[in-house]
Amino acid sequence: KKHNFSAGPSILSPYTIQHTAEGVLDLNQSGLSIMEISHRSKDFMAIMEETQQLFKDLLDIPAGYHVLLLQGGASMQFCMVPYNLMQHKAAYLNTGSWASKALKEASFFGEAVEVASSKDKNFSYIPKDYKIPPDADYFHITTNNTIYGTEIREDMDCPVNLVADMSSDIMSRPLDPGPFGLIYAGAQKNIGPAGVCLVIIRDDMLERVPETLPSMLKYTTFSAKNSMFNTPPCFAIYTVQLVLKWLEDTVGGLDAMATVNRKKAATLYHLLDNDGFYPGTAAADSRSLMNVTLRLPDEDLEKRFVAEALENGLGGLKGHRSVGGCRASIYNAVSLAAVEALAQFMKEFARRN
Amino acid sequence: KKHNFSAGPSILSPYTIQHTAEGVLDLNQSGLSIMEISHRSKDFMAIMEETQQLFKDLLDIPAGYHVLLLQGGASMQFCMVPYNLMQHKAAYLNTGSWASKALKEASFFGEAVEVASSKDKNFSYIPKDYKIPPDADYFHITTNNTIYGTEIREDMDCPVNLVADMSSDIMSRPLDPGPFGLIYAGAQKNIGPAGVCLVIIRDDMLERVPETLPSMLKYTTFSAKNSMFNTPPCFAIYTVQLVLKWLEDTVGGLDAMATVNRKKAATLYHLLDNDGFYPGTAAADSRSLMNVTLRLPDEDLEKRFVAEALENGLGGLKGHRSVGGCRASIYNAVSLAAVEALAQFMKEFARRN
Repeated sequence: KKHNFSAGPSILSPYTIQHTAEGVLDLNQSGLSIMEISHRSKDFMAIMEETQQLFKDLLDIPAGYHVLLLQGGASMQFCMVPYNLMQHKAAYLNTGSWASKALKEASFFGEAVEVASSKDKNFSYIPKDYKIPPDADYFHITTNNTIYGTEIREDMDCPVNLVADMSSDIMSRPLDPGPFGLIYAGAQKNIGPAGVCLVIIRDDMLERVPETLPSMLKYTTFSAKNSMFNTPPCFAIYTVQLVLKWLEDTVGGLDAMATVNRKKAATLYHLLDNDGFYPGTAAADSRSLMNVTLRLPDEDLEKRFVAEALENGLGGLKGHRSVGGCRASIYNAVSLAAVEALAQFMKEFARRN
Repeated sequence: KKHNFSAGPSILSPYTIQHTAEGVLDLNQSGLSIMEISHRSKDFMAIMEETQQLFKDLLDIPAGYHVLLLQGGASMQFCMVPYNLMQHKAAYLNTGSWASKALKEASFFGEAVEVASSKDKNFSYIPKDYKIPPDADYFHITTNNTIYGTEIREDMDCPVNLVADMSSDIMSRPLDPGPFGLIYAGAQKNIGPAGVCLVIIRDDMLERVPETLPSMLKYTTFSAKNSMFNTPPCFAIYTVQLVLKWLEDTVGGLDAMATVNRKKAATLYHLLDNDGFYPGTAAADSRSLMNVTLRLPDEDLEKRFVAEALENGLGGLKGHRSVGGCRASIYNAVSLAAVEALAQFMKEFARRN
């Protein structure tokens, strides 16, 4: 199997892929495919409940939160968050393209304040000194910025309700949901295939949702019906369940996952720091453990690097056009062995050029 | 393999299931799963384009329409249709639970007029005599009513833009898109697995969409980006492509599909008409070719019928609680052989009881 470092939809574990294929052919020896059973069937209800329970167990989600599985990806949450939670004003930290999009959508629903931005240096760092307006209905952050290779990993002291887009680093390490009013994450990095979005919402946030919103746009519709107001994306949820089972049983939970993820990132950042050949683009104190962004001495070399890596079974290394250069996305399912193979190739490529 | 007559998510052809499983394990000998390739990759772009082209070919969609593949199911369209297309007033034909839901969501955005309803007789017929307000921005119909077993199959002379929810009978027969400004259909009956929704929209409808809507709620966002504004539900679209290929190559197109569907429905309705044991619940002139709703002499017999059918490998025959009795959903992928097996069982069950 090739090693795939693409930014998403990203790689899944062999366990997940094998069991997904089995469920496509015949779910639980039912003689039916996961794609053709009713979402009200016992088989699917069990999948939905176990998936939600696995999220609660792995992320240590306390009572007083709902775990929802919705459609539309994080982009739909850019709209639903302000529609449901903004009464007058909301504060946004602008750390990249996705944060900018979230901010733009929020401005449709009220006063969306950009409290800080790192756009001045092409989003290569996480801003540190800013003031959150105490009258904001919530403060929105993007914990990991896939394009720019930056990440917010430390706990945050927030005077208002904290809302986080964790699409690209959720489940990569243990989390204390306590400070968060709402967390959302499109599945296609660390949770599963594209087509389903996780929302973890605290009960007092649900109480703020206006009654008058259209059904499909209000969180209370889905919390009241356990994400089964309409037909959910059954297949995607089935695969999410398998990803979470793999995380729990094979990896051994989020502490173990975090240990592996730190090792993977350290392997690459060590190379960046000790070899001027691959300068990193993100500020050292803002580096992401999920996306390692780097340059090479010139653009021709960058092209050759991506092409030769691919020939060596190392795919998906082209950087995003907003940053240029190269990017290795090393989400949960990318193994340490894959990262070591990449590091080995990088050393050899640097020596040869 | 069991025969499955459930109302949806519904059965898929063995071709679709087999090839979906192959793509889950290894897409086009790429060494990667359909679930883990980038939606911007050549492989996925080809799937998206071929899927849209297959819709255009099979449904004979003329120039001047866009084929979109969205998330959120038909329920999200209950919201998006009025949000995008209603300026002042919209007209709705109320033929069942889903039509009622569409009407309810529309009332959030403006004056939603119910031009006629068959609620007086538990939605057992399609209303015929009604007046569509000539100043309505559009007239909304639900072509097939899964719960009540009724269907609108004839062409309609509509003085305003016609909008149709075709979730449960699209692709069951040839269609002339000409009279329609917008057609939508959740995939999980005749198109594919749950998690993707087809929208066919005429260019003059797109021109009516206000600039000011949130990005994820306006059709122009998706028409401008060929349904790739954000990560689409790649897996579900892949399976849709396989369903359409099966329709084109194995079935032989929608004319051939319609011939089979008429035979299937005639087999069951013939039994209902010629044996007082199974009275149909839908008015004869409003009968659906997709969902055959029927009663038995008493409720105990209905329970036994469903249970004994299941023992004989005939599943999903319990009727919806709104109608009671039994229901056989005979969507495209349900074979004539499956329907004949059901008819045979029905004859024997009637004789025995």
